[in-house]
Amino acid sequence: MSRIPNAIGDAAAEFDGIPGVGPRAALRYAFWLVTQPKEKIRRFAQALLGLADGVVRCRTCGAWSDKDLCPICADPARDRSLLCVVATDQDLRVIEGSGAFRGVYHVLGGLLDPIEGRTPETLAIGRLVARVKDPASGITEVVLAFDPDVSGDTTALYIARQLNGTPVSVTRLARGLPTGAQIEYADEITVADALANRRKQ
Amino acid sequence: MSRIPNAIGDAAAEFDGIPGVGPRAALRYAFWLVTQPKEKIRRFAQALLGLADGVVRCRTCGAWSDKDLCPICADPARDRSLLCVVATDQDLRVIEGSGAFRGVYHVLGGLLDPIEGRTPETLAIGRLVARVKDPASGITEVVLAFDPDVSGDTTALYIARQLNGTPVSVTRLARGLPTGAQIEYADEITVADALANRRKQ
Repeated sequence: MSRIPNAIGDAAAEFDGIPGVGPRAALRYAFWLVTQPKEKIRRFAQALLGLADGVVRCRTCGAWSDKDLCPICADPARDRSLLCVVATDQDLRVIEGSGAFRGVYHVLGGLLDPIEGRTPETLAIGRLVARVKDPASGITEVVLAFDPDVSGDTTALYIARQLNGTPVSVTRLARGLPTGAQIEYADEITVADALANRRKQ
Repeated sequence: MSRIPNAIGDAAAEFDGIPGVGPRAALRYAFWLVTQPKEKIRRFAQALLGLADGVVRCRTCGAWSDKDLCPICADPARDRSLLCVVATDQDLRVIEGSGAFRGVYHVLGGLLDPIEGRTPETLAIGRLVARVKDPASGITEVVLAFDPDVSGDTTALYIARQLNGTPVSVTRLARGLPTGAQIEYADEITVADALANRRKQ
């Protein structure tokens, strides 16, 4: 590796730091970028600087936003009685992309995972509970939209307990067969969930 | 997509421009980077700026280099009679990593591919021919280290013709079974190459 010019090695090291990018791909990205017009390279760097200074957390829901209040929280047409709690901004975008939700959101910033050091204090759970308990909020239902795995289950259980005694109804996304799935190839837990949650045709 | 903050969308668009990075991964990279400390984001941007201003092409071989003359061309221990021609800096690094080559290099910047618009004029072929034909160069053998595919074959043929009539010997990397391959799963062309190029045990 000693023959790599410093500038290329430095850039590759930064790409390599991105989760999901391996050292080989990182080097390929750096070697590709160095061949690009200087104007393009500077625009790329400028775009990254925008991530440091051009984006803030929405003061209400915690999603990344151009402004202090995100477009969803600022939209008077959204149903403020219905609050969807998501782990990440990406999950928010997927829910939003389904077009099936017209309420508002709360972004936790992750799911509980003691091994990874993600305790309740590292997530926006306290702010969620305060938001839901605020009599002015008008929230009647909290939909927990977490991954159907151990972290998701743990986080859902924890939040449900925190909201115990409040009049809001706490729900969670349904589990079952995904559209297009073949029962023949479905895993046992998914099939068991689909059976337990069966609905009238 | 309308809900993505501009700064995150801009950064994702730049990542998406990298060959091999899809729009989903690009968005994931941007959403990850925005959560990083500002100092880290700025260092990343700075590393990219280094690609615009901190690296040059070696004046002799054309490889990316910290200095005007790359470490290999500047190394008096290298065999200057043996010239290895590669398409890219990455290929150079792989040859160099094998530890089996002690000559010097020439980086073409790609392989001939008329469909992609890569004509001889877009590559450093003219400079290669001039370098080889220069009586002061002392080059006696040109090893063409190109991918064993149509572009590699075309480029090798073209260069061999350009060097026709010079006393240098033009060779190409051997084709055959890669180490660890199983004949049972080898493709027919590789087996045919391995047979045609068979050697005494």
